[in-house]
Amino acid sequence: MPHNHKLIYYINKWVSITSDEEAKIISAFELKSAAKKELMLEPGEVCEYIYFITKGAMRSYFVDDKGNEHIFQIRLENGWISDLESFFTQRKSNYYLEALEDVEVLRISSSRLEALYEEVPKLERYFRILFQKAYINSLERLNATMWDSAIERYNDLVKEQSDIFQRVPLVYIASYLGITPESLSRIRKKKS
Amino acid sequence: MPHNHKLIYYINKWVSITSDEEAKIISAFELKSAAKKELMLEPGEVCEYIYFITKGAMRSYFVDDKGNEHIFQIRLENGWISDLESFFTQRKSNYYLEALEDVEVLRISSSRLEALYEEVPKLERYFRILFQKAYINSLERLNATMWDSAIERYNDLVKEQSDIFQRVPLVYIASYLGITPESLSRIRKKKS
Repeated sequence: MPHNHKLIYYINKWVSITSDEEAKIISAFELKSAAKKELMLEPGEVCEYIYFITKGAMRSYFVDDKGNEHIFQIRLENGWISDLESFFTQRKSNYYLEALEDVEVLRISSSRLEALYEEVPKLERYFRILFQKAYINSLERLNATMWDSAIERYNDLVKEQSDIFQRVPLVYIASYLGITPESLSRIRKKKS
Repeated sequence: MPHNHKLIYYINKWVSITSDEEAKIISAFELKSAAKKELMLEPGEVCEYIYFITKGAMRSYFVDDKGNEHIFQIRLENGWISDLESFFTQRKSNYYLEALEDVEVLRISSSRLEALYEEVPKLERYFRILFQKAYINSLERLNATMWDSAIERYNDLVKEQSDIFQRVPLVYIASYLGITPESLSRIRKKKS
């Protein structure tokens, strides 16, 4: 299957597009190839593109203060990869995007994608469904996990919804954090 | 601010809607109130609605085999709550949705929302942006956490992308799982 057709095939799984819309989508994406180990994004750059992988595998990772690599995502063909936060905010990325194999991708820039949403509203529907599904999946993954540190989650909660402690029973907040009410009391005492 | 106006205010932060579109949105949502502790969803039911909270606080939770409650989400006013998976798939939910305080919500059903997307495409844009942001946030939360069990993540990976092991260096997969290559070897030996 030609590269463009793969992209159209996957979009068509969720929204049904006409041949006119198909032509508009195809002309908006650019085909690029990269050799194994080639970087498509480095920290400090804005992630200009979202990539649909038609061949090969890619990863995103960041390097912490101690020089350790942490892999964020690994995607194979027919998957999307980007630093979505940088892509949508146009702020500098902290990530590397690297080809793990020789890859072929279809890429589109943020501004081109915004324009394409106007031309083909069904594409915006496709991305609404894609993000919705991805969000549900990641919620489930989060729900199935424990945080490495209850303190970190506690801090997030205080920052994001500080009046929650005045309004919601502590036993509920503890359950939400995945810790016992006693642990929550200890954290709160330490912080105050 | 009247309830409807709060909803419009928050939608307008992301997409700019006309007064005609505003009227269409307002007429599609129903205002409901619920007393503290009232349930809006129970396991075995399909989650028919997505709720925009205009007053009060709500939580979603499930009860495990041992009878322990696990809170999934807590949301205050101007936030959205639902069991999104059940809402979008129309499959039975595993969750409870409960009012933590006396609440007022604006609710819309799945089919009405789909119809409203056709009438007001900008609302679909709003939800595309909402899910996109929520997905990015949850990715970051996931990235900042460790799994309670590397084995569980390993099993997920095998199920979802089994040929990843033939194509991606084990040291990368270990980093993705947040474990050492040695731990990954041990898991793989145990499983084979």
